[in-house]
Amino acid sequence: MRDVAIIGVKTTKFGENWDVSLRDIITEAGVGALEDARVTGEEIDAIIVGNMSGGQFIEQEHIGALIADYAGLAKELHVPATRVEAACASGGLALRQGIHAVASGLEDIVVAAGVEKMTDISSTSASTALAAAADREWEGIMGATFPGLYAMIAKLHMHKYGTTSEQLAQVAVKNHANGAHNPIAQYRNKISVEDVLRSIMVADPLHIFDCSPITDGAAAVILAPADIAHKYTDTPIYVKATSQASDTLALHDRKDITTLAASVEAGKRAFKMAKLTPKDIDLVEVHDCFTIAEICAIEDLGFVKKGEGGKFTEEGNTAIGGKIPVNTSGGLKACGHPVGATGIKQAVEIVEQLRGDAGKRQVDGAEIGMTHNVGGSGATAVVHILSRDR
Amino acid sequence: MRDVAIIGVKTTKFGENWDVSLRDIITEAGVGALEDARVTGEEIDAIIVGNMSGGQFIEQEHIGALIADYAGLAKELHVPATRVEAACASGGLALRQGIHAVASGLEDIVVAAGVEKMTDISSTSASTALAAAADREWEGIMGATFPGLYAMIAKLHMHKYGTTSEQLAQVAVKNHANGAHNPIAQYRNKISVEDVLRSIMVADPLHIFDCSPITDGAAAVILAPADIAHKYTDTPIYVKATSQASDTLALHDRKDITTLAASVEAGKRAFKMAKLTPKDIDLVEVHDCFTIAEICAIEDLGFVKKGEGGKFTEEGNTAIGGKIPVNTSGGLKACGHPVGATGIKQAVEIVEQLRGDAGKRQVDGAEIGMTHNVGGSGATAVVHILSRDR
Repeated sequence: MRDVAIIGVKTTKFGENWDVSLRDIITEAGVGALEDARVTGEEIDAIIVGNMSGGQFIEQEHIGALIADYAGLAKELHVPATRVEAACASGGLALRQGIHAVASGLEDIVVAAGVEKMTDISSTSASTALAAAADREWEGIMGATFPGLYAMIAKLHMHKYGTTSEQLAQVAVKNHANGAHNPIAQYRNKISVEDVLRSIMVADPLHIFDCSPITDGAAAVILAPADIAHKYTDTPIYVKATSQASDTLALHDRKDITTLAASVEAGKRAFKMAKLTPKDIDLVEVHDCFTIAEICAIEDLGFVKKGEGGKFTEEGNTAIGGKIPVNTSGGLKACGHPVGATGIKQAVEIVEQLRGDAGKRQVDGAEIGMTHNVGGSGATAVVHILSRDR
Repeated sequence: MRDVAIIGVKTTKFGENWDVSLRDIITEAGVGALEDARVTGEEIDAIIVGNMSGGQFIEQEHIGALIADYAGLAKELHVPATRVEAACASGGLALRQGIHAVASGLEDIVVAAGVEKMTDISSTSASTALAAAADREWEGIMGATFPGLYAMIAKLHMHKYGTTSEQLAQVAVKNHANGAHNPIAQYRNKISVEDVLRSIMVADPLHIFDCSPITDGAAAVILAPADIAHKYTDTPIYVKATSQASDTLALHDRKDITTLAASVEAGKRAFKMAKLTPKDIDLVEVHDCFTIAEICAIEDLGFVKKGEGGKFTEEGNTAIGGKIPVNTSGGLKACGHPVGATGIKQAVEIVEQLRGDAGKRQVDGAEIGMTHNVGGSGATAVVHILSRDR
């Protein structure tokens, strides 16, 4: 296996972008990443794109070919383009498939991208579309949507470990504070614990400020063999680990719904592959589709003991400057959550941090970062570890 | 790169299978292929599944995790499971991704599967869902569905090359004759040229018997490194080539719509990789979503000169016993076309033929076979070459 480096990155503005379509934003992200890497179209061997549901959101499947087409890589060059999907972990999977393609020696320059255009249908329909990430025959058909599923996780976490609504709110407060410094974030306003607790209840105990929004957005990274990365950039960022794990689709089939076993397993596999431990990680982007999800994630990945994530957050340990900065981008909560793009955006944030380009969000001396991307309520988890040093 | 072998195969009955759901048929195919390969669950390193649109057809995305779950591979083993999509070429892409995973040395035993459950919604909705494989903003929005797009290809083919409705009909007649001997085929009735010409017109010049049907079905193959294939089976079938190419999504952006440039390019790349020519191929499964598509395919892959596919078919050269038997399974036309499963089913047919297990469909002395899987109207093409000999 060859070492792999990220040599270019780009994320579009996340938000309700009604004046552009999916093909516009994915082209902006792809071309931006290529420019960042100073790579030409002729050099591209393959495109892998993560997208959860173009079919449901905009009646457009076959998005790999669409991207190759709109990037001008289809007509003469016939560049192979593949869509991968694992619900909200689609972006993370695209990164993983791209890394595999380069690591194996089958391809040299690969574009790994993610995109979702979610605001072109009503929010009710968006919730229905997203519910397709859960078990349709056992959960969706009963009316379960994701706020409801994560609310059950939150309720049990509170019951077992004494986690409080204030602690959940702290996740949102911290992520909005980070997002305020991120130019591409959907929400750049700071909020208080009181703001969260006073916001309308979506699914008890989750208020609307405990939930990530519906978002349009795209992101792309350019992958290359580590041996030639310096041809393109002075600051390649190296892939130290990629891992993926599955779990049951329905919550009711799990022994303990406060633990996402796929996250635990993907984390373990990644640390083993990188020969690292949680102590070695300088910052992490985790999948905070709901505030409770961030608390579970930092526990499941081993940054804090199970049950102590709420207290750990409340004490400020996950803020920039804390023991382990979590979601410096603003996370899914404040930066936004265009589901297929999120896993790639997480990698872009880590690359910008490790390059020292994160501006007011910069984690001092960041050398090793991690991304954690979850599909549905945890039936898929994808973890990557990235490093300044090869 | 390591050599890769197919060590187990299974296709479910194709048809309108209203008594089973997607999870039932994909589990039947996966478990059947594992039994055929005598592989246990613990040995599986990864699952790759092709599926075009679980979201639109059955409101279920995240189908990789669903399969791992229902196969009992998620809860304890956490086997990574990934869905890939390129419209009707999703199955071919799953096979290709699986081959890459094994060839690279990253995985040993990989399940490559495909599935589509299409009959749980009305046929009008199925046509709308399928139209998402075309360019939504330039074709779908104008009302174009696939019969219309392929009808335009057929019209121009007739105009430029003198291809006749009778020659198109011959494709359907031959594929129904083959399907009659295939126990898993959706249609096992023989038809005549007159039957085709008398059937209702869907989009001039395509009658309903020129069109592949709406189908439920699943298929799976088990991949392993060639070096250990004989541990599992006495008749491993070896992968000699895998290739993929893109083209513009919309027909109007192409120089000549009677040529699918992605098929031409994928064919060339596959022959180059295998160091073979069309003359070396003993049988081929091509993507006959419409009768005209089979004629274009045998031309684009180089089995006959451009424009001569209709005459070549009329003369019986593509029948079993002819110069190059095409679609011995019955093809998409008679065997059925569960879009995400088709690319895998094509490989299963070639494996059964090369093993000598194809019964009354058997091509005598078949040693090398090819599959050709197309997404949409040709924006994606995926080609594989399989062989009895390593």
